[in-house]
Order: sequence, then structure tokens, then C-alpha cells
Amino acid sequence: MSAPTAGIINVTGYVGVELARLLHQHPGVDLAWVTGRSAAGQKLGSIFPHLTGIDLTIQPEPGGADVVFSAMPHRESAAVIAPLLERGMRVVDASADFRLKDISEYERRYGVEHPASHLVSEAVYGLPELHRQELSSARLVANPGCYPTGAILALAPAVREGLIERDIVVDSKSGVSGAGRTPALNTHYSEANEDISAYALEGHRHLPEITQELDLLRPGQSVSVTFIPHLTPMTRGILSTCYACLAPSAEGMGREAFSQLYRHFYCEHPFVRVVESSPHTKHTWGSNMCLVYPTVAPDTGTLVVISAIDNLVKGAAGEAVQNMNLMLGLPETSGLEGLAVVP
Amino acid sequence: MSAPTAGIINVTGYVGVELARLLHQHPGVDLAWVTGRSAAGQKLGSIFPHLTGIDLTIQPEPGGADVVFSAMPHRESAAVIAPLLERGMRVVDASADFRLKDISEYERRYGVEHPASHLVSEAVYGLPELHRQELSSARLVANPGCYPTGAILALAPAVREGLIERDIVVDSKSGVSGAGRTPALNTHYSEANEDISAYALEGHRHLPEITQELDLLRPGQSVSVTFIPHLTPMTRGILSTCYACLAPSAEGMGREAFSQLYRHFYCEHPFVRVVESSPHTKHTWGSNMCLVYPTVAPDTGTLVVISAIDNLVKGAAGEAVQNMNLMLGLPETSGLEGLAVVP
Amino acid sequence: MSAPTAGIINVTGYVGVELARLLHQHPGVDLAWVTGRSAAGQKLGSIFPHLTGIDLTIQPEPGGADVVFSAMPHRESAAVIAPLLERGMRVVDASADFRLKDISEYERRYGVEHPASHLVSEAVYGLPELHRQELSSARLVANPGCYPTGAILALAPAVREGLIERDIVVDSKSGVSGAGRTPALNTHYSEANEDISAYALEGHRHLPEITQELDLLRPGQSVSVTFIPHLTPMTRGILSTCYACLAPSAEGMGREAFSQLYRHFYCEHPFVRVVESSPHTKHTWGSNMCLVYPTVAPDTGTLVVISAIDNLVKGAAGEAVQNMNLMLGLPETSGLEGLAVVP
Amino acid sequence: MSAPTAGIINVTGYVGVELARLLHQHPGVDLAWVTGRSAAGQKLGSIFPHLTGIDLTIQPEPGGADVVFSAMPHRESAAVIAPLLERGMRVVDASADFRLKDISEYERRYGVEHPASHLVSEAVYGLPELHRQELSSARLVANPGCYPTGAILALAPAVREGLIERDIVVDSKSGVSGAGRTPALNTHYSEANEDISAYALEGHRHLPEITQELDLLRPGQSVSVTFIPHLTPMTRGILSTCYACLAPSAEGMGREAFSQLYRHFYCEHPFVRVVESSPHTKHTWGSNMCLVYPTVAPDTGTLVVISAIDNLVKGAAGEAVQNMNLMLGLPETSGLEGLAVVP
Repeated sequence: MSAPTAGIINVTGYVGVELARLLHQHPGVDLAWVTGRSAAGQKLGSIFPHLTGIDLTIQPEPGGADVVFSAMPHRESAAVIAPLLERGMRVVDASADFRLKDISEYERRYGVEHPASHLVSEAVYGLPELHRQELSSARLVANPGCYPTGAILALAPAVREGLIERDIVVDSKSGVSGAGRTPALNTHYSEANEDISAYALEGHRHLPEITQELDLLRPGQSVSVTFIPHLTPMTRGILSTCYACLAPSAEGMGREAFSQLYRHFYCEHPFVRVVESSPHTKHTWGSNMCLVYPTVAPDTGTLVVISAIDNLVKGAAGEAVQNMNLMLGLPETSGLEGLAVVP
Repeated sequence: MSAPTAGIINVTGYVGVELARLLHQHPGVDLAWVTGRSAAGQKLGSIFPHLTGIDLTIQPEPGGADVVFSAMPHRESAAVIAPLLERGMRVVDASADFRLKDISEYERRYGVEHPASHLVSEAVYGLPELHRQELSSARLVANPGCYPTGAILALAPAVREGLIERDIVVDSKSGVSGAGRTPALNTHYSEANEDISAYALEGHRHLPEITQELDLLRPGQSVSVTFIPHLTPMTRGILSTCYACLAPSAEGMGREAFSQLYRHFYCEHPFVRVVESSPHTKHTWGSNMCLVYPTVAPDTGTLVVISAIDNLVKGAAGEAVQNMNLMLGLPETSGLEGLAVVP
Repeated sequence: MSAPTAGIINVTGYVGVELARLLHQHPGVDLAWVTGRSAAGQKLGSIFPHLTGIDLTIQPEPGGADVVFSAMPHRESAAVIAPLLERGMRVVDASADFRLKDISEYERRYGVEHPASHLVSEAVYGLPELHRQELSSARLVANPGCYPTGAILALAPAVREGLIERDIVVDSKSGVSGAGRTPALNTHYSEANEDISAYALEGHRHLPEITQELDLLRPGQSVSVTFIPHLTPMTRGILSTCYACLAPSAEGMGREAFSQLYRHFYCEHPFVRVVESSPHTKHTWGSNMCLVYPTVAPDTGTLVVISAIDNLVKGAAGEAVQNMNLMLGLPETSGLEGLAVVP
Repeated sequence: MSAPTAGIINVTGYVGVELARLLHQHPGVDLAWVTGRSAAGQKLGSIFPHLTGIDLTIQPEPGGADVVFSAMPHRESAAVIAPLLERGMRVVDASADFRLKDISEYERRYGVEHPASHLVSEAVYGLPELHRQELSSARLVANPGCYPTGAILALAPAVREGLIERDIVVDSKSGVSGAGRTPALNTHYSEANEDISAYALEGHRHLPEITQELDLLRPGQSVSVTFIPHLTPMTRGILSTCYACLAPSAEGMGREAFSQLYRHFYCEHPFVRVVESSPHTKHTWGSNMCLVYPTVAPDTGTLVVISAIDNLVKGAAGEAVQNMNLMLGLPETSGLEGLAVVP
């Protein structure tokens, strides 16, 4: 019996090439085809030399596959995905198109009309640590944004247990690869090197994802998240430092109590590791692991939770493969066992 | 009439060499001597090739000077400074020894008995934007820590006007030079490169400086600051992102109102520039400028203020020279007009 | 039948942890134990968080194994290895102790008496592309230096065919991890970042390895190599740019002729890829691939060959695993198929 | 009497902004105007925040000035310059248009017809260490390329004295700012970070400059230079490592003899420092200094000369200001005394 097949739409961005790397090395899936518009007709390895070992020619259009990954930009992605679903394929969409259940919020944040709003309700938000069950039967998975992945995993246990007040600060520091492969002045080496700055102060598009998922954890209560992303001089990694005042129900809880709570929350989730000291993005480099460290600031009693991920793996392509594993009934860790490459 | 003279104690760290660079180029002061223990007897330029243009031999002991800068570590600094003050010299101390007015807090945070507690009360906290008047006649100036400089300047206007609630988050991202010149594993290139991590989660020594100065701005009210510093892969720069809920008195104030308030607060201070968009540490590289950007998060109404400095200039050596200028009655900007070196 | 076992002596350096990562993921070998002096008794993951998935406690002394890897410093390595060989184990030595056949050259370059000179003659220089045959039966393999791996692979085809004059320049640019994990001033982040410098101008220890191996390729003729290594601001990677005037026998040979020659030379070697454009170290990041690009400078007719490797993989741990595969009769690529992680 | 005035054409690239920084701080010249096409009408500081202290609005067209600097691209530069010369202004051209005396070589290398070939013969090649005399009366100065500056200064003494054979290798490592401010894939942060590669292997445009100037030093003999530039992950700096076999006339000359010769050659040149150990680009950061280190490889007797510069200062804007100083009869070091900013 042959292995299930996978295809990648728009392989030519950083999420696309990372998907190609992971799927090629996946023991239970065959990467059948990859598409890319401007690069169609060329060997994958001729554009991405590190992928020379993958013997595929970039196609102009998707073929058939058991699971299709879309790495198209938002809006275009939904348009490409809809006919594939009709043809019976299952899809993991790495774009933002199906992440938000509130279509008007999507349209406001992204400034476009939703191209396939009829599919929104069935799409499963692809954070396996919160939606593992639904993912196994999902036809359409909305792969989370990189920032939401780190922020939600940092906050979910505290929010679900009602241990923090509703005002939450998420201060995230991202490597530059999160901005994609298209050259621009802010990601020009000479500008981004030796520099840190905050951006999207008028409101980042990933914020409603964070709010949506946290609110689902504790029906009847809603969080108020101030989320500020920062561009930092490294290629990969997101460190999210999250702050919230303790709720009365958490009175007396210190670092150890939170650590225990978090461990219990994630005990059956292979890609979240609750750690005992402040995590480094470097320790996730190239791996699908999310490191989470909850603690309580001794001077103020504020809960501080720090998470570290590789934005291209657990924050994008790795999480997408994790979702595919669940959809296909493969072991959740299949193809994702690679340890981080350090230093 | 000859220019006033300056000396540097312990020139061999990063603050020391930056002081040497700035004082050598200062038009109104003569750098008379520099000391360094292990390096005594060597030419300054033989250890620090970029300082070859300064024709000084490193001395084992301080000489006489109108103003002495101490770049000794805490505790040792106070011991060296006390006799110089007795000999009639004026001192800018770059160490932490005289920053905190509460001696027990100092002893608790630094884990040592204060070596010269009788001098604490007369020391002036050398943040010119808050203490310009007292600095002009100060005999002993406690140069602020790098983090407090950025954090206090970001928060002072809002705190003084009572516009924010007492719970404040200061999330700071520092370049590695802030950790000094002594090699260690966490600042080893292969460890620090391509990595971000938070540290000092058990409470950083700079926190009480921040609290002390903010509390002075609004007697009768005290702030509660959660301060988390982060090590980031760049050599110079600190970006501090500060968060606080608006107080009722700030109701309805938006970005422009805060911008105007901040401009007014700093209108006579040449080294704080209130900017109209998110600041970059890179734009302060090598300069004494602090860029401050106050805004209000649209989704939550939280005040967000971001400041950017060069930790070795406005965060250390430049601020020390600025303090010296005020002590000697020189123009505050003398020797500090250099623009940032970009890119 | 159980898999062969492997052990790592001195796991606590960068070569050691990279060996642990690769051997843990190796499908045909069991990593049985790791040693480390100062860290003995601790879990591997408690010191190296990215290795948390490897459930091993660091041992004070080596145990038994089918193949032992020594990541000890030179001189100490030979002393540790000798008794293991007597106990019947096979050894891959990542130190310099058994690389040079000329013991006096070793003693001159390393400034120590050889600790086990009786073993030198049987040791096989572990560059599989030149010594694959001998490696299959070797008891003791001297794993090459990182610089020699890149330089020899760049030059071997041209030297063996007698196509270049004897004066060769090898200009190598190395990432900082090549200097190891012990902190020092030259590898301190603030010193190494945003800097390039040449070092070892008085003669680098890796030079005689390069000469030894190139001379073996063309008996009766000897090369004269000027080798200058440079420290560059990245963590991993070595780019070696090699220059030599063409010999009369190469008259008329251009880029394509050399490319063809090189392809033929390496056609049966899975970890050398002759490429068609200037290679990037980034495209080898985390992989065991060596990219080689030979060309002829159009203005002077000088042969220029550029090679790119990951200094910790093909330049150290990966090559060691490749050698182990050959020793154990496993597929040469086993455990080393991982594609480079880009970007 | 008022100071002479200067203008900058096309201030919006990296050479332009560095010129603005240096001229603004120059004590003997007034920066009168700056131009820029797309940015015309905006304040200089609104595009380049670090230049906020310069109170100039970007103009669409050049005005009048005693010296005009052109930072236009090649070909466009000559077209803009010609009318200014006719209007009696003196010009320092930072483009390549007037560097090569051989017009056909220019046209071949740059692939365009020379736009003002009648001006080529009068243009002075603006390397002050070789042409100081002619520069004082020059009307049109061709500011050297960044690579030629470092390479020529490294080789000039040895070539002039006939101490090396004609085959020379120049292996240069450049920071990314040398590629300019326009975003492109190869200078995209995620591509350029953690990577080194060689480029322009088919022949770099700076090569004929190097050859032209070295040949002028020893009439009747010509050099044969293989020049390979490399892109390296830092913002500023060029390290050039130059190799040549010693000529018979240099027999017996070692490091000290070359050091002495070089010191003598450059003894009256304030911006070349012959150093006693391998130079670091970092030690030139932001300064106009060129560090040169000649030595002889002990194993082969090959001359190795290493030079380090800041590509945007001594390699571009600083050298242009140095040329202006000579043209105007100002002290050669005026406005250029700033020490390097380290670390």
C-alpha cells in the first residue's frame, strides 16, 4: 500500500520551502508536487540549492493529493483552495483566510472581502494543542499565525483556569524570516541588522486570532490583549513575553504552582515543553518544539510567561505537518522528530 | 586659560573605552589620564586599536583631575571614589553604588554591605532630564543604569501627570555589549548569535532605580513595575517597550495628545527626541540621543511607550559626559553632537 | 539483532553535541553513552536543552561501544583512545592527534610530544572522498580538521590531475563555532559581531593536513600552500576560496572543463556536490554536504575553486558519522540525509 | 568670511547619507543642499531619522556650491556632473564614471557608452595617498571604489618597489552596505545573514581600477590581479587579503622589513596606519582609517598583506571628504578625526 501524497501550492516562499524540507523527510508521506508561478518549469533545487535532493519540477498548477498545503498569500489562498476541496482533497491553509471565525473581523483586518466565506465555519483552527480532536476529521485546517502559536500556547493554561485578569500584554520578538522572502527596505540586511524596533502599533492582524482562541478557552469571559510585535536581528525564532496580573483565584500561586499547572495542561502534547528556566529561541532552531516558561515576577506578583518557537517550524510549516499527521491518523510526531540544530 | 581635565578609572571595559572616545573628542575638556589594573603600563591604543589616536599610557592609579569618571564595578567603585572626593575632585560614578537612596535596598539587591554609605545622600542621580538643576553643583553623580535611562525617559511624563495606573510593564531588549567585556558563555558569539532570551526573571538590579525615580515624580503615589530584560543579537542598543493602563484622568487621550504632552515635557532637553513613528535602536547607534514614542493601543486603550537608546552612550558613557558638562557649566551638548552612524 | 552501539567522549563541546544530535537521529546505531568531566552526573538535556529528547546522563568515564567518538582536545584524546583500542573498540578521533603522518611535524605544530605515536601509522585519515576503501576496515580514524575538509575537497581533482602549479592560496572564512564553546575575548559576541579578521598568520595547525593529503594525490610532486583562515560573524560555515595558476597541461581549460572533471571525480561521493554557481555556506547549514565550484578567472586565467561546508557537520561531526558508517558497513549516507535548514 | 559650501546629489543612498553625516559635522564646510528624486520635498530627517539634526529639505535639483558630491549611479552621474563643471563648480564623483582612464575598458565593464568621455582625461583618481598633489587643483575627482581603496593601499608599496611577482590574488570580504540601499534578494536579511559567498566570478567592475593604479606605480611592468569579492554578514567593513609571491629583489625580506617599508611609504598619510598585528574591520567602524598589515607566510614565503576599511567611510564618503579637503586647501583630516566606534 502506498503512502498518502502531499502537494504544496506556492513553494517559493519561506513557508513553502520549509514545508518541502519537512515533507521530503517525512517517513509516512510522499511529496508529490509543488507549484510556483514565476518559477514554474524549473527544478526545485535550481532555485533553492539546499533542496537539490528533492527531485521535483515546479508546476504551474496543483495536481491531485491526499493533503494539499497552501502557502499562498491571504485572499489568493482561499480562491485556490475552494476548488480543491470540491475535488475531494483535504487542505492545510497556511494563510490567514480561515483562521478567524468572525468574517467581518477578517474583512476589517485584511481589508478585503472574504473570498470563500462559506468555508469559514467548517475550518478547524490548526493549533493541535487546543483542537486535536477536531483536526483528525478536518477537511480544511487553518494553520495558525506564527505569533498566535507562541502567544496562545503561553497563555492557554492560565486563561482556561481563570487565573489571570483580563488585561494581558504580549510582547513578541520575531526573527526576520517571519516577514517572508520578498525583499523590502525594512528587511534589507543593512537596515535590519543591529536593530530592534516595534511595528504594527496600529494593531497587528494576528491579534484577533489570539483573542479568539483565548476566549474560547473560558466561555463567558473575554481577554483584552495588547500585542506588540518586534523585528529583531536574527533569521528564525519568536520569543513572546506575556504579562498579566493574577486573578484573586490565583492568590498565593508562585512559579512552581504555575509550572505544575502548565505541565499538566501539556502533558499529552509532544511539542510543548514546559521548562524550568528562561527559554532561548535558539533551542528551537529548526525544530517543532515550543518551549514555555511560566513564572511570577517577585516584585509585583505579575504572571510572566515566556514562549519560544521557530517561527518557520512550529510557527508555520512544522505545525502544518503536525496538523496533517492528525488528519491522516499518523503519529503526531511523524517527520517532526528532528532536534533543534544548536549552536 | 586651560581646559578642565578629566580622568577615567578602569578604562578597560566597554564603558571605559567609550568614555575615552567621547572625552578625547570633547572640545572643552582634556582627557588627562586613564587607569586600568591588568593593563597598566601599556599604551591605550595597543589594547584598543581604535583608540590609537589617543596618546595615553594606562596608569595603575588615578591622578588628579577636575572630574573623574569611575567605570569600576559596583562596590569597588565606591571604595575608590571616596578618597578622590576627599581630595576635592568631582566624580561621575558609572557604577551602581550611589544610585539607590535606600541603602538597605542596595545591600539586598547587590548582596554586599555598602562601602561608603555616608556619601549616598549627597549623590545626585545623573539623569539630566530629571535632575539638571542639582547636577550643576553636584560633587558626586551616580550615573544611571542603561535600562533605567530608557525606561524612565519613556515613562516620566505619563507618571508625573498621573495619566497611568500603577501597574507598569517594562519589556526591554538589550544588545550584548550591555553585559560588558568579560567573556562568558551567555555572551559567547555562538550562543548569543541568532538567539533571544529573557533573563533576571527573579528580579533585575536595575528595577529599584526605575521605581525610585518614577516615584519621585509623583509624591504620594507609587508605581509597581514588572521589568523583564532580554538579551538580543546585536552589539549596541536598548529598546524598551512600556505598557500601562490609562488612568481615569487620561480618558480620551490618544496618540497625539500623548505626543504633545511628551514634546512639552522634553522641549528643553536636547537628548530626548519625541518621534512620530516607532523608533529603531539603529537610529541611535553611537549617539547620545534617546528616541521616545508614546502611543495608545487601538484595541485595548493601553498606553504603549517605546524608547530607543545606545546603551553605551545615552545608557552609559554619553550620559556621563552630559552630566560632566552640566557639572562644569559647559553646554549640555558639548562633545555629544555626533550623529548616529547609520546603517 | 540489535544495532551497533556508539559512545561519545567529551560531549560538552560543539562537536560533541552535534555528534549527539546526529547519532540520536541515526537509524542504524544506538547512542549508548556520553561522557563529560565537569558535567558528569547531569542529564544531557539539562545542559543542552535542545538535546532534551535524548535520555542520557553524562558519564564520568567511557563505557563499551562498537564505535567510540572522541571529542577531546588534542593530546588528551590520544591518551584516552589508546586503552579503548586495546579493549577492542573502534575509534573515530575528532582531535588532531592522528591526522599527521609525520610525527615531528605534529610535535612542532602542536608543541607537545605525541602521546601515542605507535598508533599513528595505522590511523586512517577520515576524508571518505579520498580514503573510503581504507576506512571500511579501519580501527582508528583521524577525523579531518574543518578547514582541511573544505580545502582538500576543493583542490583534490585539480591536484591529482596535475592541472595547477604548485603555489596555491587557500583563503578560508569560518563561522565562530569553529573556535569551540569555551568563552574567550575574540569570540565574545561584542567583539566578533560585525567584524572580520584574519588569524594564525604565523601558520595554522591545519596547514600540514592540507599539504599531506594533496601531496598524496600526486606522488613525486608537492604543493606549496599559503593558507589564511578568517573569523567571520556567523555561527556555522566555512567558505574556502582557493587560487592556483594553471599548469601547462591545463591550457585552454575553462570553467566547463573543470566542472566536468570535478563532477567525474566526485560522481560516486554523495556528500560532495559540484555546483554551477558560486556556493553559499548557508546552503549547507546543518547538513553534511560540501558544495564545490571550480571556475577560471577570466582576466587572469587563474583557477579559482570555492567550497562551502557546515564546519560542525561535514567539517566535524557529520564527517565522523560518515566515517562510522563506512567502518560499520552501513550506507554511507545513513543518518546524514537531513537537508540543510534554510533560511 | 564664510565657509565654503558643499552640496550632495542623490543623498538617498548609503553613500549619500554618510556624506551628509560627515559634511554636517565638518568644521570648515557648510552643507548647503542635498538632492534626491523620489524624496524631493521631504525633510532629510523624515526619511533618515538619524539625520534629524540636519535642517535641510531634499531638493529636486542641484543648486550652487563650491564643491558638489555626486552619489548618483554610474552613467547618470556623468550626465549630471558635466553641466555643473561648466557652471564652474568643482565635483567629487562617487560613481565609477571617471575612474578608468581607458574609456573602452569602462564601456566594456559597465556595458554603456561613456556619457562624458571628454572629461575623463582631466579627472583625478581620488586616492589621496597616491594622488595628493594633483587633487589640490583638481576640478573633477573620481572617488575610488570601495574595493580598490583597500586593495591598492594594501599593495602599493610592494608594487612600487618591485618586490612581488606580477600574479596577485586579492580576496576581499565586504559588508552588505556595499551593495547599496535598494532591496534585493541577495541582500535580504534572511538570505544574507549567517552566510558567506563569493560573487562576480566572471570579473568584477572594480578590477580594472586596481590594475590601473598599481600599473601606474611601476611603469613598464604590469600586474595580473585575480580579484574575488565576497559578501559577508556584517553591515560595514571590507577586509582585503592580498597574496603575491616575492620577487627575487625581495629575497630575505620578512615581516619586519615589509612593515618598515610600508611605514615609510605611508608616513605622511594620516589615514593609513600600518599595524603590527592582523587588523579587524571593526576597528575602522565609522572612521576614515585604513589599517594595513603586511607579513610573509612562514611556510611558503608568500607576501600576505591585509587591509581593513569601513567601506562607507574610507571606501566612499570619508575618502570623498578627504579629497574635498585637499581640493579646498583645508587640513586633510578636517571633519574626519572621529575615532572608530567600538564595539
